[in-house]
Order: sequence, then structure tokens, then C-alpha cells
Amino acid sequence: MSLLVTGSIGIDTVSSPYGHAESVLGGSAVYFSYTASYFAPVRLVGVVGDDFPDRYRKVMEERPIDLGGLEIRKGSQTFRWTGRFEGAMNEAETVEVDLNVLAERGPRVPNHFADSQFIFLANTHPTLQRELLSQVSSPRLVVCDTMNLWITTEKESLLETLRVVDGVIVNDGEARMLTGKMNLIEAGEDIIKLGPRFAMIKKGEHGAIMVTADHAVSVPAFPARIVHDPTGAGDSFAGGVLGHLAAEGKTDVATLRQALVRGTVMASFTIEDFSLRRLEKLTGDEIRERVDQYVRMLRFD
Amino acid sequence: MSLLVTGSIGIDTVSSPYGHAESVLGGSAVYFSYTASYFAPVRLVGVVGDDFPDRYRKVMEERPIDLGGLEIRKGSQTFRWTGRFEGAMNEAETVEVDLNVLAERGPRVPNHFADSQFIFLANTHPTLQRELLSQVSSPRLVVCDTMNLWITTEKESLLETLRVVDGVIVNDGEARMLTGKMNLIEAGEDIIKLGPRFAMIKKGEHGAIMVTADHAVSVPAFPARIVHDPTGAGDSFAGGVLGHLAAEGKTDVATLRQALVRGTVMASFTIEDFSLRRLEKLTGDEIRERVDQYVRMLRFD
Repeated sequence: MSLLVTGSIGIDTVSSPYGHAESVLGGSAVYFSYTASYFAPVRLVGVVGDDFPDRYRKVMEERPIDLGGLEIRKGSQTFRWTGRFEGAMNEAETVEVDLNVLAERGPRVPNHFADSQFIFLANTHPTLQRELLSQVSSPRLVVCDTMNLWITTEKESLLETLRVVDGVIVNDGEARMLTGKMNLIEAGEDIIKLGPRFAMIKKGEHGAIMVTADHAVSVPAFPARIVHDPTGAGDSFAGGVLGHLAAEGKTDVATLRQALVRGTVMASFTIEDFSLRRLEKLTGDEIRERVDQYVRMLRFD
Repeated sequence: MSLLVTGSIGIDTVSSPYGHAESVLGGSAVYFSYTASYFAPVRLVGVVGDDFPDRYRKVMEERPIDLGGLEIRKGSQTFRWTGRFEGAMNEAETVEVDLNVLAERGPRVPNHFADSQFIFLANTHPTLQRELLSQVSSPRLVVCDTMNLWITTEKESLLETLRVVDGVIVNDGEARMLTGKMNLIEAGEDIIKLGPRFAMIKKGEHGAIMVTADHAVSVPAFPARIVHDPTGAGDSFAGGVLGHLAAEGKTDVATLRQALVRGTVMASFTIEDFSLRRLEKLTGDEIRERVDQYVRMLRFD
């Protein structure tokens, strides 16, 4: 089924103990579409400046990603982020951020995307998330992300967004900040009370938790030896999750559990190299093999 | 098969956001024996002062724990620890510690315990760990714990201990400090190179990792809503692990994996209440039920 993502498209500069990548392709919508596209075709909605390198557009065009919603805004500059990972590399330290075009008016969902059924609203201002959503006629499953900034400064608007989505994918810090609960199962339960049918809470190297009205599941990260750049891990997780749901056309708990596994596995590929480098050479067989390996690892009966 | 533990027996005072417990029974050997005793009879070796309350001895006697190796040393004071948990409660803050009798000469393994086959050397000076081990005639499986203090101050002695044990159960901070590797799979692999056949690395609320020569597995913690006092979680984990191995009389990877699940489940009970309160009313049925629930939670095929 059709899968639409709205979010950032950026140019990243990243340092980690394993190297440095200068002005590489990044952004939530990019990582999301790239990973989701291994499961289902993706429609991308986002905006960049006219400085956006054509070769980065080509990288996305190599996958079944419909760029019909990619606006290249004349006279504007693309979003840029510079970050650094240290130590256990569980959290990025932002060295510099230039919102550029992301500080201007949001993109539009093109008419031929209005019939999209599975929607991922990557992190942006919660009011813009609802605006974008209102441009989709009859979505079947809407999932959103958010960030600490909106939890602090736009709580009311965020709560309004949470009332109209079916699912939330956030990280542990955001879940705790949003609910005031330190225990992540309790935090997940509190998020459910705000509207969504499910909450997936990402814990970086520690895996993820999913809470629904009557089910709680905690999964480990794929035990990865190679972690060179965690940038985009969270959006790759979301891409694996939504990609699987859209491919299956189902949103029941059993399918959500399968999606949780796909999200975990896709994140484990992304972090193996800087930017999209690992994903660019990824094959469907490698994904299936790692999913099998992960499922076998967790089978104890 | 016979299971012996050497470690601390203490009187703890613990505060958490959920309450306060004054002068309650604690110590690594106590949490270990109590949880392991649900799987196999336990032989305890440890030393307390003559201030050790008789009612705490009785608590242990209610389980199949052989106190033949419990020395009550006249004129000495029992080990005391005061700690506090805050926020996500993943790590205890030590407020006060009085080693007391633990700073004197170590206990002895009584002759009738010398034929013990499964041995857990809870955290203590690595030289004392080897001394105690030398009093056991032909152990089949020896597992040790350690702590940051010995990694820093007694590295050579600790490395000698690691050369003579079959397995290690440590927490993530210790594994990283011991190996200098931030990635826990790599840390586990490095520990294996130091001698042990397996390394289990505990990550508190984030679960645990096991690494052997040809297998790496990461498991989540049991998704617990009730976490009132994490004291003893790590030793309860070890108790579940060694208890299961001793009960099965096997140490192959498949049995180690099953043991990893039992350790995880036993820790999840311990943290539900202060001191041994939850464990004191625990039933075998509750353990089996939670193991089943955990195994089902992780079954994705």
C-alpha cells in the first residue's frame, strides 16, 4: 500500500571515533525513505534549497522513491547539520545546525500523493505535521515522531497532533520528557492514553520497546560489532517499521511486532557506515538473512 | 549438581523514589543464593559479624540454602552498605559503605563443600577469589564477577583469576573498563580472549548480552512496570543463570542461552520490592509463568 513520508532532507557533516564525513546526504525523510523502500515504494515530501546537489537526488532515485513531493526552492539553502559521536556513541552531539529552508514555510503534499494510506510524519513542528496530514484524504495509518524542542515549547500543539495519529515512534529521552515517567513501559502506556494506538520507544544501542493497549514488548538491538555512524538509525528504524506495515497492508499487533523486528534490523545496517553508504549497497537477501538471524537469536523455546 | 557461592552478606539501607528500607538483608551471596535456590540447592560461603541478626539467618534457612559455610566471626561487624537510586534507577549511588568483616581475612570453604561442581565467585578481591577456588577440589564450571575497584587497582591479579574461570558475569561499565572497548560485543569478545569460555554483560534496565567463542546474543530486560529497588538485580541474574546450569548439569551454549533467560527473569522479580521481600513470597509457578511470557514475547517467527 502507498507509503508517504514528510520530513527533513539535509546535508550532514558527521564525526565519530571511526572517521569523518563531510557534507553527505542526510535528514529524517531520506533515511526513512531509503530503508522503507526495501519493503514498499515510498512517496517523499520535503523541501531543499537550490544548493541541493543533483547527485544526492540521484542517490534517492536509485530506489523506488517517488520524488514528486520534493520541492527545490529557489534562493533557499538546504538544511545542514554537523554532529559528533563519542564514547558509546548512543547520542549525537550537535555541533552546528542551520535550519535554512526548514525555517521557511513547509512543503506541500502534491495532489497525486493525497490518496496515500500509510503516513510517517517525521520530526518537525507539530502544527506543520497536522497541516501536512490534512492534505492527505483518507490515511489508514498515521505515525509521527517528535523532539525535545516541541515537547518543551509546543506541548499543546504536540498533544493535538498526538490525538490524531495512530502511532508514535520516539526515543527514550523524548518519551520520558513527554510523560514525566522514567519507567519506559509506563511512559509508553501514558503515550497511549494521549491518543495513539501504539508507541514505539527507541533506545539506541539498547533496542526498542513497543506498547499497545494490551501488549508490551522489549527487543534488543541487533548485536552489532560495527557501529561507525549512528546518524539516521532512528529514522531507519521507522522506515523498516512503516515499510513492513505498508507492504503487509496490516496494522494488527502481530504485524506491528514483525515491523518492530524489521525496524531494528534496518537501523543495524544504517549504523555500519557513514551517511547512506551501507544502505546504498544493501540487498534484499541481506535484510532477510539478518531478520532470520535476529529472530533465531531471540528464540528460546 | 552442587552449586557453591562465595560473596558478601550484608546489611543494606536503601532509598529509591518508591520508598526506603533500613538495615535490611542484602549482599551478593544472599541475592545469589536466594534466587539460585529456586533451581538447585545452594551452598553459601561467607562471613558476617556477631551483630548479624538471627532473623536474617532464618530468612535464608527457609530456602534450600546450606549455611555450613557461613562464618559468624566474634568481635567483628557485618558488612554494611547504604545506597540510593534516582531517576531511571539504572545505577546505585553509594552513600556509605562499611566493609567491616569484609576487610578482614576471607572465609573458608568447609571440607564438606570441597566437592562442589558449579561455583560462583561473587565480587571480592581477585586474589581471595582464587584462594577460595583453590579450596574446591574439582569444579566443573567456575564463574566470577568483579568490580571497577579491582579493574583499576588489582588488574594483574584479576587477569590471573580470569585465566582460571570458565565464565564471567559483569555489568556494562565493568566490561568496558576491563577491555577498553565501548562496543559491548567487542568487549565480550575481548573478555573471552582473557580466558573465560563465556561472558555475560548485564545492562540493568536494558537487559544483557552473552558472548561465547562463536555466539553473541543480546536480550532485553523483562518489561517491568514495577521497579522499586534494583539492589541485588545483578546477583539475582547470576543466581538464575548458575541455578539453571547446576539444575541442568550442562554448560553448552543452548543451556547457557536458557540460563540467560532465567537470570533475566529472576532479576525482574528482585527489583519489584526492597531487599528480598519479593523473592520471599515467590513461587516456582510464578517463575515458570514469567519465563514462558518472556520467551513468547521474544518469539517472532
